[in-house]
Amino acid sequence: MNLRLDYNNVIKEYVGEHGIDSDDFNEYKDKIASAIEGMKKKKDEGKMDFRLMPFVQDDVVNDINDYVESVKEKGVIDTFVVLGIGGSALGPIAVQQALNHPYYNELTKEQRKGCPRLYVLDNVDPEKIVNFLDIVDLKKCLFNVISKSGSTSETMSQFMIIEEKMKKVLDNEDELKDHFVFTTDKEKGNLVKIGKEKGYKMFVVPSGVGGRFSELTPVGLLAAAMCGINISELLRGAKEMDMACDKTNYRESPAYMYAIIHYILMNKNKKLSVMMPYSDRLKYMSDWYCQLWAESIGKKFDNEGKEVWGGMTPIKALGVTDQHSQLQLYTEGPFDKIVVFLKNERFKNELMIPEVYGDIPEINFLGGHTQNELINVELSSTEIALNKMGKPNMKIIFPEINEYYIGQFIQMMEIATGFMGELMNINAFDQPGVEEGKNCTYAIFNKPGYEEKKKELESQKKRTDKFIC
Amino acid sequence: MNLRLDYNNVIKEYVGEHGIDSDDFNEYKDKIASAIEGMKKKKDEGKMDFRLMPFVQDDVVNDINDYVESVKEKGVIDTFVVLGIGGSALGPIAVQQALNHPYYNELTKEQRKGCPRLYVLDNVDPEKIVNFLDIVDLKKCLFNVISKSGSTSETMSQFMIIEEKMKKVLDNEDELKDHFVFTTDKEKGNLVKIGKEKGYKMFVVPSGVGGRFSELTPVGLLAAAMCGINISELLRGAKEMDMACDKTNYRESPAYMYAIIHYILMNKNKKLSVMMPYSDRLKYMSDWYCQLWAESIGKKFDNEGKEVWGGMTPIKALGVTDQHSQLQLYTEGPFDKIVVFLKNERFKNELMIPEVYGDIPEINFLGGHTQNELINVELSSTEIALNKMGKPNMKIIFPEINEYYIGQFIQMMEIATGFMGELMNINAFDQPGVEEGKNCTYAIFNKPGYEEKKKELESQKKRTDKFIC
Repeated sequence: MNLRLDYNNVIKEYVGEHGIDSDDFNEYKDKIASAIEGMKKKKDEGKMDFRLMPFVQDDVVNDINDYVESVKEKGVIDTFVVLGIGGSALGPIAVQQALNHPYYNELTKEQRKGCPRLYVLDNVDPEKIVNFLDIVDLKKCLFNVISKSGSTSETMSQFMIIEEKMKKVLDNEDELKDHFVFTTDKEKGNLVKIGKEKGYKMFVVPSGVGGRFSELTPVGLLAAAMCGINISELLRGAKEMDMACDKTNYRESPAYMYAIIHYILMNKNKKLSVMMPYSDRLKYMSDWYCQLWAESIGKKFDNEGKEVWGGMTPIKALGVTDQHSQLQLYTEGPFDKIVVFLKNERFKNELMIPEVYGDIPEINFLGGHTQNELINVELSSTEIALNKMGKPNMKIIFPEINEYYIGQFIQMMEIATGFMGELMNINAFDQPGVEEGKNCTYAIFNKPGYEEKKKELESQKKRTDKFIC
Repeated sequence: MNLRLDYNNVIKEYVGEHGIDSDDFNEYKDKIASAIEGMKKKKDEGKMDFRLMPFVQDDVVNDINDYVESVKEKGVIDTFVVLGIGGSALGPIAVQQALNHPYYNELTKEQRKGCPRLYVLDNVDPEKIVNFLDIVDLKKCLFNVISKSGSTSETMSQFMIIEEKMKKVLDNEDELKDHFVFTTDKEKGNLVKIGKEKGYKMFVVPSGVGGRFSELTPVGLLAAAMCGINISELLRGAKEMDMACDKTNYRESPAYMYAIIHYILMNKNKKLSVMMPYSDRLKYMSDWYCQLWAESIGKKFDNEGKEVWGGMTPIKALGVTDQHSQLQLYTEGPFDKIVVFLKNERFKNELMIPEVYGDIPEINFLGGHTQNELINVELSSTEIALNKMGKPNMKIIFPEINEYYIGQFIQMMEIATGFMGELMNINAFDQPGVEEGKNCTYAIFNKPGYEEKKKELESQKKRTDKFIC
């Protein structure tokens, strides 16, 4: 079985005038056909290498599993720490949350089946590392530094700080090898240089796969395997989904349909895409998706260099929790959204609500039902409420949450994102809009080569104190 | 000193055509004046009781602190658990994250200065409670059930489940009193009835204060005090801010200005409000704000009953982390947003980046700087990048993050939200749009009184399998 995309509630017949109908699909017929062609071409030309990842990594999986085994055998490490940001952090967090115990780090080592605790330090808040050191023994930590270029300021500054601290607690520098592992480019960049010099174990981010598409490379697979997740199953799910999506008839491809529906609605001025899982496990999958969707399709220029200021803003929400914080807006607010629910058909346990308080019918009616029923009935009720208000929504259905389906979901969303880029005729794989900020930071920090930028900044008009209160 | 609102970067002179200028302020002059009047009137008429909370709760604070003391003295409890959802959960989470150690629950009891661990169970995912029980000893847990009406299905079902489980582990039912405390209405509702019968300690949610405005009532204050946070200081900050905002000249009121800028930009079709703190501590303040802003101003009807489908969609982001996931969209995507940064001027420690790797200038330039510098330089750089692309942004400046300023922030955002309601001429204090979903759930669960709704649901057009893939 595969994940299913149920898009009944974006169809006009069910949701009303703000939905879509066959005329809309017809209007974009040619565009869709050429996007399907574009996907094939880019894959063949090596411009969508994330598509290959589920098919070509047998050796990588073995290498990772062997390394994990060797770390466990040595018995030094009880804490695995990702130093990474953006795509290097969101994927590892999301997969861990989806597949491991929700309070994983608070379990005993026995409950964790001997796997280390996992932390992801994905910010440069100066309090973060200091506070982190309050709760771990540095000598038992293994740091996975993830940066394809080896020049990400945030990650590299964390590495520089922690490597120095580590030196101070180890008996000799030769032991550093047990505490750092790099995930970076095969040949280029600062981490390669450092890793070779110091003999750190290194894993490769394939050159044709960008950060936000890299969860199913060693970027995400290493942390997952380290925490006991079956990474072969992740990849098997992704493989099945890749084949299920690679269709000439777009109606059979859940990833293509996902993108097409978004594209049509975007052109009807619905530029917000809410992802709302009804499952705590999937909460951080929304975060991961938000990066993928935002960075890939938010672009000033199209492929012909025309200014388009394109993009949709992804929003993360959690059911049922956010029924009590966002739903009021989704039902009664502007017609500017599509809501995508993630439904879990089989939770790992059943939880019965006891038949108590017979004298209080206001709550007694809950008794005899399960929380499993409650959460999915609330999802249905939310769909009904949105439909009634004419707000388009759809859902992705997980038969259950395990490695296989999480792999499917990742691949499906990545293909959908690539396909959305084709429909919009933009480059879904770059991020030119973040360069300006990076360059300003370099200039302010006097990085060699940014002298011109520094002059530009200094010549900028100074703000006054007039507009402050 | 107070929090400051720096809105230079929404001014046309600095950000360009998508910004605002004095003509805009003039255009809405009368509306602003009548909103200021409306605020006064509503406060006097008892329709904005959240305004009073910082001024009238001396007894409440004493009661809470005494209770906390008594719990600690008994020495039975090592874990405090909030059962609540929406406003009953988001505030407690946000304040805890802002003011306590980021890995608070993983500290030793000594490091926590004898305070209990804190968990907030704000969803009905059936795995949640079961997994939670893996890591705690029920006999050492104190559950704070928060629901003003006492009929919130999610919270009440959790309570029913846990109370039954607790009975099984206790020696006799008389001990239940040590494990449950209610925060609810003064007189009405199921929790009052249950609490009285069983002799549970109860705290009061003032009747005139709605859930999302209730953080500075016992809803939020109890959990905070239990975890060692100085709640008098929270209230003192809120009080100072309330007085600082209560101005006839709107330019002197940071809360009014915050709302006015949003209102003007909303009318220029910028209907997204991103809150992006550059501080891990403030991350969950964005979640809290998202509820406040979304539920309060997302309304189908205005006060005259006219259909408006009004509202702005709040978005949570975190700097610098989300520079690597959302910033591309914010700079190059549609002109549909205002970005609000939260800046922390003084972190609790300084963290130096060592001057290492002299042979690699690409990273060596970071050495000798602090992460404190890095995070705030990145904030400046992001502002510059947004300005260059013509994207309006502003920032709220925290002199530091402590109880006083968190109290200020909460009150400022609540006043801004109330004021936004006045400007939009909508009721910022109800949430009619969530009733439909609730009623559907009641009907499906056969709650007495919802027989008509059940018939309506049964008569609805069935979806086909046509629109699924």
